[in-house]
Amino acid sequence: MKKLINDPQQVVREALEGMAAAHPDLIRVSLEPKYIYRADAPRPGKVAVISGGGSGHEPMHGGFVGYGMLDAACPGEVFTSPTPDQMYEAAKRVDGGAGVLFIVKNYSGDVMNFDMAADLLRGEGIAVESVLIADDVAVESSLYSQGRRGTGTTVLAEKIVGAAAERGYALDRLAELGRRVAENGRSMGMALTSCTVPHVGKPTFELGPDEVEIGIGIHGEPGRYREPLRPADEIVERLLDPILSDLPFRAGDRVICMVNSMGGTPLLELYIVYRKVAAVCAERGVTIARNLVGAYITSLEMAGVSITLLRVDDEMLELWDDPVHTPALRWRR
Amino acid sequence: MKKLINDPQQVVREALEGMAAAHPDLIRVSLEPKYIYRADAPRPGKVAVISGGGSGHEPMHGGFVGYGMLDAACPGEVFTSPTPDQMYEAAKRVDGGAGVLFIVKNYSGDVMNFDMAADLLRGEGIAVESVLIADDVAVESSLYSQGRRGTGTTVLAEKIVGAAAERGYALDRLAELGRRVAENGRSMGMALTSCTVPHVGKPTFELGPDEVEIGIGIHGEPGRYREPLRPADEIVERLLDPILSDLPFRAGDRVICMVNSMGGTPLLELYIVYRKVAAVCAERGVTIARNLVGAYITSLEMAGVSITLLRVDDEMLELWDDPVHTPALRWRR
Repeated sequence: MKKLINDPQQVVREALEGMAAAHPDLIRVSLEPKYIYRADAPRPGKVAVISGGGSGHEPMHGGFVGYGMLDAACPGEVFTSPTPDQMYEAAKRVDGGAGVLFIVKNYSGDVMNFDMAADLLRGEGIAVESVLIADDVAVESSLYSQGRRGTGTTVLAEKIVGAAAERGYALDRLAELGRRVAENGRSMGMALTSCTVPHVGKPTFELGPDEVEIGIGIHGEPGRYREPLRPADEIVERLLDPILSDLPFRAGDRVICMVNSMGGTPLLELYIVYRKVAAVCAERGVTIARNLVGAYITSLEMAGVSITLLRVDDEMLELWDDPVHTPALRWRR
Repeated sequence: MKKLINDPQQVVREALEGMAAAHPDLIRVSLEPKYIYRADAPRPGKVAVISGGGSGHEPMHGGFVGYGMLDAACPGEVFTSPTPDQMYEAAKRVDGGAGVLFIVKNYSGDVMNFDMAADLLRGEGIAVESVLIADDVAVESSLYSQGRRGTGTTVLAEKIVGAAAERGYALDRLAELGRRVAENGRSMGMALTSCTVPHVGKPTFELGPDEVEIGIGIHGEPGRYREPLRPADEIVERLLDPILSDLPFRAGDRVICMVNSMGGTPLLELYIVYRKVAAVCAERGVTIARNLVGAYITSLEMAGVSITLLRVDDEMLELWDDPVHTPALRWRR
């Protein structure tokens, strides 16, 4: 295992310390229990938006903490769900009195532990709503999830919901918006190589020298099928066809499109992928209104790509354009 | 070779087409000859800042074209210098009548071809100045350069000089600023794995399963030495000591620090590296005034990291904070 780490057991802690050192203007870090929160939290009167999940998917979620996106993020160990005390303590820290919205990717451990934290918080009179992201069209159920896995739409939901929270949406309206985003997003990914979990020390799976896995999960869990490596344009079709036909996306739809590196795939290749995505969407009459091309929801150093399309309405698009200032996403109108 | 590409000979062209599709608000792309330029070029009365070099280092340079940074970037084939006609045509396209500044990394082919383009332009009465970046402390000369190689300081120089050009600095003053940045920046990198040039099809070099190369160049060219993989903190010391002692950086200095992925190293590891960089700088009394942690100047999918420190004065720091809006860097004060 070749990684730039010290102790495999301390990877998450040390990365959090590095994040805190790099972004003191934006975030603070708690180490016991582990969570990242906005430097200016709590924001009185604002719904606190909180997400979390296993580490190894950086910048998600910690890199999305800051103005206009998350109030806190709870990182589990690598590819391991965070525990309820993390979400409970994070919520207590950032609660501004207007309630808490959890954004949860659909993995059984995540769902259970966010639910337990929500129960604890409700027991103390804090209103909590949850939005579940289950956007991965690759498999209908998986090793780690009942129902579809939650992947790329999470990033887009955190941006859109975070902007709405900043605008002062009340908890109910925010949850409704989040669910609308969840319903309109679809993703699928593929891998060229495996990743290696630091405390495991060997690759999660093996692929032949010319083999790829279509429909891979963000923890390296199995996808739809393996096949020989094909040209990028054909791989894009293999990912986009199931996405487009699932919602389905129709001519006239506007979408936010994310072309995402699984961690080890460089930007040069992502742009070659985006080129084909844009061409296919144009053929189908689907307008890419906004896009992200980069590494946003990764699987450690896995080489590969995922594609996410989110059908947007005017409200979502306007919220997308709202200012955001986090370690990983930053813009103003 | 496992890559998300179509034709290995068309990698640069197709990536440029993808960039153009993804960022129509910011950039335009010329394919014959190849260059990327600001959508709003030329900007009358503004010095045009132009850089370029081999492809395979994305987002550098094309990702830095836009408001407050580059007016144009000229990509060669992968790890191959751009040809003089690219810089010549790009300069003619973006020249706003106030002259042209070239930012050139110190590789023999780049230097020669930018010089030829400058001569052509001067022959047409366009004033041209060049700033040479030669910041890599690893080797004093290399396969590809007479004198030190140009690496990470290039990114910081393009941001600072680009901001100054936006403010209306005249060509002479801009060149003086650029040279001051070049003189005050130092970098060094290391690799865990090789990269594979698409049209070559096999790894540029071989490293043993537990071996790393310290002082690697951004084309995979040899560095200082190979040794067994050590903990990240020790690797940081091996990179930082030569950097700090070279300028030298002294207690009381303020720096911009970049911790850069060579392409295949994920953010989780970069933050572990940044944690140690911050600790060492603090011990030495060097203040990290600003930082970048991410993939900015890469070597395709190579796993590894480089560290850049740039000693800044008030002027450089103020220019750093100026707004920038490019595909890869974006902020406002």
